[in-house]
Amino acid sequence: MSFFSKKADEILPYVPGEQPKDGVYIKLNTNENAYQPSPKVKEALNNLDVSKLRLYPDPESTKLRETMAEVLGVNKENIFVGNGSDEVLAIAFQTFFMEKDNILMPDISYSFYLVYSDMYNVKAKTVPLNDNFTININDYLVPNNGIIIANPNAPTSISLSRDEIETIVKNNPKSVVIIDEAYVDFGGETVVSLINKYNNLLVIRTLSKSYSLAGLRVGFAIGNEELIKGMNKIKDSFNSYPIDFVAQTLAIEAIKDIEYFDKTRNMIIDTKQRTKEQLEKIGFTVLDSKTNFLFIMHKNKKAEDIFNYLRENKVLVRFFNKPKTDNWLRVTIGTDEQMDRFIKIIKDFVE
Amino acid sequence: MSFFSKKADEILPYVPGEQPKDGVYIKLNTNENAYQPSPKVKEALNNLDVSKLRLYPDPESTKLRETMAEVLGVNKENIFVGNGSDEVLAIAFQTFFMEKDNILMPDISYSFYLVYSDMYNVKAKTVPLNDNFTININDYLVPNNGIIIANPNAPTSISLSRDEIETIVKNNPKSVVIIDEAYVDFGGETVVSLINKYNNLLVIRTLSKSYSLAGLRVGFAIGNEELIKGMNKIKDSFNSYPIDFVAQTLAIEAIKDIEYFDKTRNMIIDTKQRTKEQLEKIGFTVLDSKTNFLFIMHKNKKAEDIFNYLRENKVLVRFFNKPKTDNWLRVTIGTDEQMDRFIKIIKDFVE
Repeated sequence: MSFFSKKADEILPYVPGEQPKDGVYIKLNTNENAYQPSPKVKEALNNLDVSKLRLYPDPESTKLRETMAEVLGVNKENIFVGNGSDEVLAIAFQTFFMEKDNILMPDISYSFYLVYSDMYNVKAKTVPLNDNFTININDYLVPNNGIIIANPNAPTSISLSRDEIETIVKNNPKSVVIIDEAYVDFGGETVVSLINKYNNLLVIRTLSKSYSLAGLRVGFAIGNEELIKGMNKIKDSFNSYPIDFVAQTLAIEAIKDIEYFDKTRNMIIDTKQRTKEQLEKIGFTVLDSKTNFLFIMHKNKKAEDIFNYLRENKVLVRFFNKPKTDNWLRVTIGTDEQMDRFIKIIKDFVE
Repeated sequence: MSFFSKKADEILPYVPGEQPKDGVYIKLNTNENAYQPSPKVKEALNNLDVSKLRLYPDPESTKLRETMAEVLGVNKENIFVGNGSDEVLAIAFQTFFMEKDNILMPDISYSFYLVYSDMYNVKAKTVPLNDNFTININDYLVPNNGIIIANPNAPTSISLSRDEIETIVKNNPKSVVIIDEAYVDFGGETVVSLINKYNNLLVIRTLSKSYSLAGLRVGFAIGNEELIKGMNKIKDSFNSYPIDFVAQTLAIEAIKDIEYFDKTRNMIIDTKQRTKEQLEKIGFTVLDSKTNFLFIMHKNKKAEDIFNYLRENKVLVRFFNKPKTDNWLRVTIGTDEQMDRFIKIIKDFVE
């Protein structure tokens, strides 16, 4: 017998975007926020009661969940907190989809969904997007045992409306429908308020993008109390304390600073619009983005060539070398200065 | 079909020790360290580069692993880091034991091992301890597909010697042998140096106890490079970034401060000895502890009654209401002042 379990032998892990250690790149490859986290985070860090670090943190992240609940207009019993939305997704897959077949998801989406499917013995049924990368909601009004959709979708950046998501949720009362809203704050329509109407809806969020806290590892899910209870059973059979004391404390302050949150996400939305127009002027097709990134294709330069040229010029973007997406690039929206530099370099190449 | 997976329906989660929120208790129930973390941790917190929080942390915790490797005299490729030793254990179970049968473990040990067994479809074979709560190593020299032993064991506090562990590891070359050394720094003998001699040995450690950082969630495993690679495959199929930027930064400083580490663990060892003697004087049997807690039984008062009396007097200890342990209490070693107060209260009750 091998030292390893069958799963450890066979699984093909997710590969995250590159995190260069030398710091010389303009980093537009992992959809991090262009701006610093709220100044309240720095303040909370300086005021942190270090003596609390010797104690286990609150396993239920109660104060953090209360803060999230207040901002979202739900109850704390509707909220599950995890170590980044990746952990929340992994726990949701184990809670709702593990060992089931016929779980629907778009064929182009966050590629970790297929890794979770392999990991937790889920038979995923990938549903092709339309040729223009949009989702046809009728494809999700068929028999299934669960649905997961990123909305807005990644890497396409395109969003379904709230009404379209509601149609899917309403017509699948026996399936848990997971809507991954990692990017919703940059222009999408959230369905959080529908959790009180539908007991089969789970919405997943993260502080990594719109709250500029990728380094802190806080994600959360919002849903009916029964769904959240199920997730807590799986979490408490895995790790009682996934959110450390510092992360719980800092996340609370970031979430409470709504003014800063609105200011920075609006700055990104403005920069995105400007960047889109500039790219269109030099021959790019740019999909209608409701995220903090653009999905772009040039009329006569190959994506891989543009990717390599940008890299040589110290700009990192993301290239997905897979069927249907292998002539597209995903470009995170940085600061105005970063995007000016990006446009200048890419213009040199394509013109 | 239910909303839940079969596992989510059936699993019985681990229940961690109580974390009272009002702060009026002397907390001797979850084996937290009596002392603050190293002053270097506070310093690192004040100097933290908050601008890094908008970026994803190093998914491989490279600098932290380098620091651990240096202190332990191994290579960074021999080290796996996780979100507390609970996450490390969960990933080790998935990597080495998942879906296997005949995995040996003591019948009295860290109760999370049985939850992981249920969670990951492991058929655990629990091996009874001797009547005096010691482990008979001959019980582990029989056919099996894996072994996990906490050394020192919990809640018994008793340790096997390095030679005894080596006998188990040497005689099971086809099984991964996991030695959970969560408490080893308080008087046990570590087997870390044996990882270069045996490719089937995995040692698990934590910063939660001897480094006073339960609130930071950093655990790690040390083993042959091939074992560590397998664990990384499972980790990267679950959560790319389980250790946040703050935790990586602070953990490095704590580990480097060897002087403070030695000072505080010696203080706990001294307080433990003194407490043991005082308890023996008032009719307690106290097992030979190599941990930061004592496992105690009184000659004529019931453990549950002592537990309740202590609780009424604002002292929390741990009571395991299960066969064989239901007349024993596990008492964490606090500061000298806390233990004086504990002894005074318990003396009032038993005398």
